[in-house]
Amino acid sequence: MLKQVIKLVIAGMVITLSVAVAYAAQTTAPFPNLAPKELVVKRGFSKDATNCIECHAKKTPGIVDDWKSGKMAHATVSCYDCHVVEKTSPMASQCEGLKGTKIFISPMVSSKTCSRCHPQEVDQFLKSGHAKLAGNPVIDNKKFIKLMYYYEGAQFIGVKDDAPQSTASRSAGCQMCHGTQVELGPDNKPIKNTWPGGVGTRYPDGSIGTCTVCHTRHKFSIEEARKPEACASCHLGPDHPDIEIYQESKHGQRYAAHGEDWRWDSAPDAWQPGDYEAPTCAVCHMSGIGELSTTHNINERLKWDLMHQKSVIRSGERGDGEKGDELMRQVCVNCHGTTHTNVQRKTLDDAVDLYNTYWDGATKMQKELAEKNLLLIDDPWNDGFQELMYYLWHHCGRRARQGAAMNGPDYAHWHGFFQVFQVYKDMQKIYEYRIKTGKIEDLSHVMSTGPL
Amino acid sequence: MLKQVIKLVIAGMVITLSVAVAYAAQTTAPFPNLAPKELVVKRGFSKDATNCIECHAKKTPGIVDDWKSGKMAHATVSCYDCHVVEKTSPMASQCEGLKGTKIFISPMVSSKTCSRCHPQEVDQFLKSGHAKLAGNPVIDNKKFIKLMYYYEGAQFIGVKDDAPQSTASRSAGCQMCHGTQVELGPDNKPIKNTWPGGVGTRYPDGSIGTCTVCHTRHKFSIEEARKPEACASCHLGPDHPDIEIYQESKHGQRYAAHGEDWRWDSAPDAWQPGDYEAPTCAVCHMSGIGELSTTHNINERLKWDLMHQKSVIRSGERGDGEKGDELMRQVCVNCHGTTHTNVQRKTLDDAVDLYNTYWDGATKMQKELAEKNLLLIDDPWNDGFQELMYYLWHHCGRRARQGAAMNGPDYAHWHGFFQVFQVYKDMQKIYEYRIKTGKIEDLSHVMSTGPL
Amino acid sequence: MLKQVIKLVIAGMVITLSVAVAYAAQTTAPFPNLAPKELVVKRGFSKDATNCIECHAKKTPGIVDDWKSGKMAHATVSCYDCHVVEKTSPMASQCEGLKGTKIFISPMVSSKTCSRCHPQEVDQFLKSGHAKLAGNPVIDNKKFIKLMYYYEGAQFIGVKDDAPQSTASRSAGCQMCHGTQVELGPDNKPIKNTWPGGVGTRYPDGSIGTCTVCHTRHKFSIEEARKPEACASCHLGPDHPDIEIYQESKHGQRYAAHGEDWRWDSAPDAWQPGDYEAPTCAVCHMSGIGELSTTHNINERLKWDLMHQKSVIRSGERGDGEKGDELMRQVCVNCHGTTHTNVQRKTLDDAVDLYNTYWDGATKMQKELAEKNLLLIDDPWNDGFQELMYYLWHHCGRRARQGAAMNGPDYAHWHGFFQVFQVYKDMQKIYEYRIKTGKIEDLSHVMSTGPL
Repeated sequence: MLKQVIKLVIAGMVITLSVAVAYAAQTTAPFPNLAPKELVVKRGFSKDATNCIECHAKKTPGIVDDWKSGKMAHATVSCYDCHVVEKTSPMASQCEGLKGTKIFISPMVSSKTCSRCHPQEVDQFLKSGHAKLAGNPVIDNKKFIKLMYYYEGAQFIGVKDDAPQSTASRSAGCQMCHGTQVELGPDNKPIKNTWPGGVGTRYPDGSIGTCTVCHTRHKFSIEEARKPEACASCHLGPDHPDIEIYQESKHGQRYAAHGEDWRWDSAPDAWQPGDYEAPTCAVCHMSGIGELSTTHNINERLKWDLMHQKSVIRSGERGDGEKGDELMRQVCVNCHGTTHTNVQRKTLDDAVDLYNTYWDGATKMQKELAEKNLLLIDDPWNDGFQELMYYLWHHCGRRARQGAAMNGPDYAHWHGFFQVFQVYKDMQKIYEYRIKTGKIEDLSHVMSTGPL
Repeated sequence: MLKQVIKLVIAGMVITLSVAVAYAAQTTAPFPNLAPKELVVKRGFSKDATNCIECHAKKTPGIVDDWKSGKMAHATVSCYDCHVVEKTSPMASQCEGLKGTKIFISPMVSSKTCSRCHPQEVDQFLKSGHAKLAGNPVIDNKKFIKLMYYYEGAQFIGVKDDAPQSTASRSAGCQMCHGTQVELGPDNKPIKNTWPGGVGTRYPDGSIGTCTVCHTRHKFSIEEARKPEACASCHLGPDHPDIEIYQESKHGQRYAAHGEDWRWDSAPDAWQPGDYEAPTCAVCHMSGIGELSTTHNINERLKWDLMHQKSVIRSGERGDGEKGDELMRQVCVNCHGTTHTNVQRKTLDDAVDLYNTYWDGATKMQKELAEKNLLLIDDPWNDGFQELMYYLWHHCGRRARQGAAMNGPDYAHWHGFFQVFQVYKDMQKIYEYRIKTGKIEDLSHVMSTGPL
Repeated sequence: MLKQVIKLVIAGMVITLSVAVAYAAQTTAPFPNLAPKELVVKRGFSKDATNCIECHAKKTPGIVDDWKSGKMAHATVSCYDCHVVEKTSPMASQCEGLKGTKIFISPMVSSKTCSRCHPQEVDQFLKSGHAKLAGNPVIDNKKFIKLMYYYEGAQFIGVKDDAPQSTASRSAGCQMCHGTQVELGPDNKPIKNTWPGGVGTRYPDGSIGTCTVCHTRHKFSIEEARKPEACASCHLGPDHPDIEIYQESKHGQRYAAHGEDWRWDSAPDAWQPGDYEAPTCAVCHMSGIGELSTTHNINERLKWDLMHQKSVIRSGERGDGEKGDELMRQVCVNCHGTTHTNVQRKTLDDAVDLYNTYWDGATKMQKELAEKNLLLIDDPWNDGFQELMYYLWHHCGRRARQGAAMNGPDYAHWHGFFQVFQVYKDMQKIYEYRIKTGKIEDLSHVMSTGPL
């Protein structure tokens, strides 16, 4: 495949070398390692497992290359072990190589399969918010779906309410992180772009969750899951810029500056300060550190719910916030004195209070406008007040709170509170105008186009 | 130059060390390597070439340090070989060191020079969109230039139409990526900040293109060009956030987490999965992989035109989109099964369809407004409808399409379709207002200030 | 877990310590490194110093782990040496371990302490803008504080002027970078979240500045301070996206691509091109390079003031801009020829000129509106014209200038001049409307909500 002609110009003199010819003379394949992979694996794998490996080493060499450097391959866990399903499974299908055999597989592997070897991790995960992400908003929240998808590809481009809508934004956007319900065609292959999807994906066999969102297939690397980039594919952007906040923080600064020299492969619970000089997302929210054990329930160490409209201390299915606060402090004290930790936690509490005050004020205005028929209840995206209220919560209000939680001052201030108060005063002016005039302003919706 | 006083405090005891003195005793220059570089190169370079190297090792040591670790230096390609030009060249000049000799050089080196040794690469490059970037918009598109530069430094700051304008925004912005036409002064040195510029730069000798935009001079490293950062200097930001999309994608996540351990120096066409665990920009768009050979025509593997107002399958001078789709799938299959690849390609097609539906709707409204004299045809940046239409295409519409193409859900949704529909409904309201009232709204332009 | 053999070389004399042996004898825990750290340090530290180290190895192991790999620990500088204060110090307190002793410490360590060993560096720092950052805007600028904090948590959420306000945004935002005046409670511990804070922090003993903002405690690594991420915690975001500009620039591209292989630990003034292939922030603004010596006065090599409303050549307490230009050119010539350097500096000068023209035009309009009582002087955040003027200067106008200064075309153009002219023409339209109608437009403030 060496198609390049090599011509050297040395000090003005052109030397044309017959390098390619010389190569061809030495060996039939100039780069032997580029010949179609013929990986032969005889390390006690079953014949069926070996077939998968050897065939896919040719068909999809990248997957097999990835797998062979991972812990699974070293532990003799093969393609077969995770992908094989009962013939009766709703996800059962056969690739070309399996046609005519009794073996059925699925390209889809859910947390249920992982739990066969990692039951505790999957148990913890299923209790976490991560496992519930497909439900809200992608599947269950009808009001939200109407709000979001009605407009996307329906009203605004003249499609009737009952006409089929494009799901393009859903497929390319929301469900990539949230997950969705996988739908299958007659051949048990996924349809409507419902697979692959995010961490909360619901599978046709009733199982929930995709572990490979963080432990990327087919290497399944613990090192990767410990790095902040593992979280960054979803925790970014205008509505929860967690990776941006981390990167701005002193923690992230040290990761960027020194992370390449840290020790990433310590066994779970044995990964401790000294292996790293600053925490990654995993360290604070998941890893064993000091007295704490590793958890895959990412709600466990959280005090506040910083995602929803009004922030309250977590309780019920969202976790135990008081306990969460205590656990998070147990993380902090590994590197910070009590004074420092107290200040940091107090700053977060104060930020939540301030945001909530704004949110309460907005809610009060909203109620009064609703009572006086001064809201476009059925058409909120065309109502400047309601649009701004959405941004107050979902965009700048989250950034203010999460920026304060993780020490990203730009996100707490410029992308956060600075905008919270800009948005709030604009809501206040619209409110005053409506109350005073008794009508909804012309073109108000245009005034809050938001980010372009 | 060591000016720092070294004082050690050990357990309260102050030990003042006479380190500086000891040094001074050893050698007249405390750090011999900091003395003016006197690099002596006698490896068969011509005398003229040696002069360049030895002089610049003193004058601009950074360049020579860079060069000496690169493949060019190892292959005995010197400053002289690339910078020397005929006396009659429109770019011929002489540095201080050449005054009085018969040697003429140019600080500018275009793809024409590179093609002496890399003809195939330059041929491919010249067929690509990269080679055409200086033309549109920086040089040829008169309408665009009027739109952009008339306002920048003309109308809005009170300068008359025919007065000389500032080219500051052009020099510091557009042409840094696009390139421009290099203009020369009487001494054949570039004037009006027209050099150095981006990949499409047109040189006074009629040649086109700057290879060092991706293969940074003077190391010309293939490793660097294979890393996503090589593309990131231009492919970023509100109008084509390709690096941001990549960084969000699973591909980028793995690069960030493991890239430092990948193998970056395999020979062209021999760089394959296994050398890397996930593709970079180069892998999918340029590199030899599986059956595919390396190409420097970055249009070759593209199906859709995702840059222009309406997305169509590429044809003519923008490439062969059907063939491009086939080639890109040949990239994907190295690591992904057919189901996965089909879903991904379908998601892109659907996203293009959805965007086009919005664009068609916008175009229809625009035509009707134009027919009814309800557009400020000659003053589009002061017309809210037209401003929003620009953002619909050039900003959020591109982000939606490119986010879908490369699996960046935040860019497909939040920075993409979510804003596409916000902008579209605002355009729709302005359209309805104008049709209903028969006039253009007051202060409409202010309503669409856009991002601040 | 101390597997490292510690060997000190002091002035040519080798001291080998048997630290590791003591450890090996103690281990009974399955993961010995997980047992509470019992670090025994007998390398000539005083008993008091040893107590601090040994106790904190248990209480806050992360700090001690960090310290032990740094130059301070190797030079036998301990916790005690930097944290101990006179009993009479306004910051004197005692941790649990010190209760009943005569030793007083402070968790706060200012530049004054650092200057005991690094007097020259602190002298330079105190002359720089960095040392003045707490004053403006966090403490001294009453007008700004009114503007900012009045709205945050006061007017808009119904709190009366004289009621206590939330300082949440201040604590989580501004002062994290700027610093503030540390306030102490009766136990001499900081209150009101006034510590820890940014680089300009003012301490209760009258000292100014926190060196560990860049040389993160408790490793104090020069390598870290040389990496761009050290600056990125503060120099980012909408109002001065310096790290983003750097990352876009060719300089940043090369850092991202190759930085992990560069030499980061050369002695001060001895860190030169060849150790790195492209400059970081430190290289251009602080480090010794060629004939230049290291400086901790980051104003020293600057020509223009690119932060304030109108850009002028620096003079007085903001530095000597003409000298700064000369010094910066001495940096550039290490890697760039004169033609290239001249073009780059000219591009910056032109960008400053263009921005200033816009700013002057805005100022002229503002004056005329003020004279005609067409500005909400006491309520600027509710006045569209004044809001836009703030963005013109503080956001897009800075981005245009700083993007041009550091070769980030996206920031010079899209986030810079493109928005400068959009904002300017909107200001112009508001101005025209007010002059023509003699009144301030309804809901104008809503029109300039800005970024959401």
